[in-house]
Amino acid sequence: MKVQSKFLEQLVNSFSALPGIGKKSALRIALHLIDGQTQKIEQFQEAFASVSKICRCRQCFNLSDDEVCSICLDKRRNKELVCVVENIQDIMAIEETGQFNGVYHVLGGVISPIEGVGPEHLRIDSLLQRIENQGVREIIMAISPTIDGETTIYYISKKLEGTSVNVSQIARGVAFGGELQYTDEITLGRSILARIPYEVDGK
Amino acid sequence: MKVQSKFLEQLVNSFSALPGIGKKSALRIALHLIDGQTQKIEQFQEAFASVSKICRCRQCFNLSDDEVCSICLDKRRNKELVCVVENIQDIMAIEETGQFNGVYHVLGGVISPIEGVGPEHLRIDSLLQRIENQGVREIIMAISPTIDGETTIYYISKKLEGTSVNVSQIARGVAFGGELQYTDEITLGRSILARIPYEVDGK
Repeated sequence: MKVQSKFLEQLVNSFSALPGIGKKSALRIALHLIDGQTQKIEQFQEAFASVSKICRCRQCFNLSDDEVCSICLDKRRNKELVCVVENIQDIMAIEETGQFNGVYHVLGGVISPIEGVGPEHLRIDSLLQRIENQGVREIIMAISPTIDGETTIYYISKKLEGTSVNVSQIARGVAFGGELQYTDEITLGRSILARIPYEVDGK
Repeated sequence: MKVQSKFLEQLVNSFSALPGIGKKSALRIALHLIDGQTQKIEQFQEAFASVSKICRCRQCFNLSDDEVCSICLDKRRNKELVCVVENIQDIMAIEETGQFNGVYHVLGGVISPIEGVGPEHLRIDSLLQRIENQGVREIIMAISPTIDGETTIYYISKKLEGTSVNVSQIARGVAFGGELQYTDEITLGRSILARIPYEVDGK
């Protein structure tokens, strides 16, 4: 793909260097921006200028504009209940449910021997310190149900053995609205093992 | 989708305002950039700063960094042969074939009564002037084979009636490597009507 404008080429290359954007999409975006979208370009320039101001909350490691994020600062939230997640997308997903009133802790991934990620690469030490210093009563492990995820949960639980903190993990099973015949066998098998009593009227 | 950083939100919104990028992709891109990709951010800032320098070639209306684009300036190219295209993506596609040695003229679209695009919205007048002033001998209409495309070709050809310029259009038919059973009936029908003599050894 060859264009007769070096500046256009530079713009296309900038976009195609991003994850999930190919050369053709990058060209379409660049042409869209060139076509009188000065407002969008200004918005970008402003946004890029502020990137360096984005930091990690020093308590939960969520992305924030201040030292401590708005969730950790919120007085209505239960600081004794910490939900441990892999990344900030997980925080967003849980916040969207409106079902959680505690605070978070972003690990930054899961233990993965194959990818060379050990416990020392994750924010596990800071989690343990936080539990020790801040009177945390329960941690909910909201970690992906993969082998690496299970390893991570096991590792952290082991570290907390002998302390008074409760460790729970999010319920796993057949998704709401999901059809049994399309559910994978491991999920279905575990759903049967972890069956819960049926309560009339949901009581 | 709610994040605890206004600056991150601004970056996500900038990306999701682009064609073909949804909120989730925008977030993924923003997180990628924040994650130590200062080089990519600098590349963007440079590219955006140069956008205003991109202009249209005053001869063919291709995007260019100079008044006249490198194709129009190229002395080896045949200025008597002009390929009329809708947009610069078409120039790129034709250049990629390596089969065309003339110059281009970018119309900026096709005549479309439904979308309210009339001949006055396209660069047809400048094409006619160019043909008159620059000794153009042949124009090749490389316009999409749609009803609007056909209308545009018809309109331009009518305007050129009585002049000495030859008007041709790119060949249409079953694509190379295409299977007959999957070819639409209009293309296949026209391919039969516009059949060409078979030449042994391609002679």
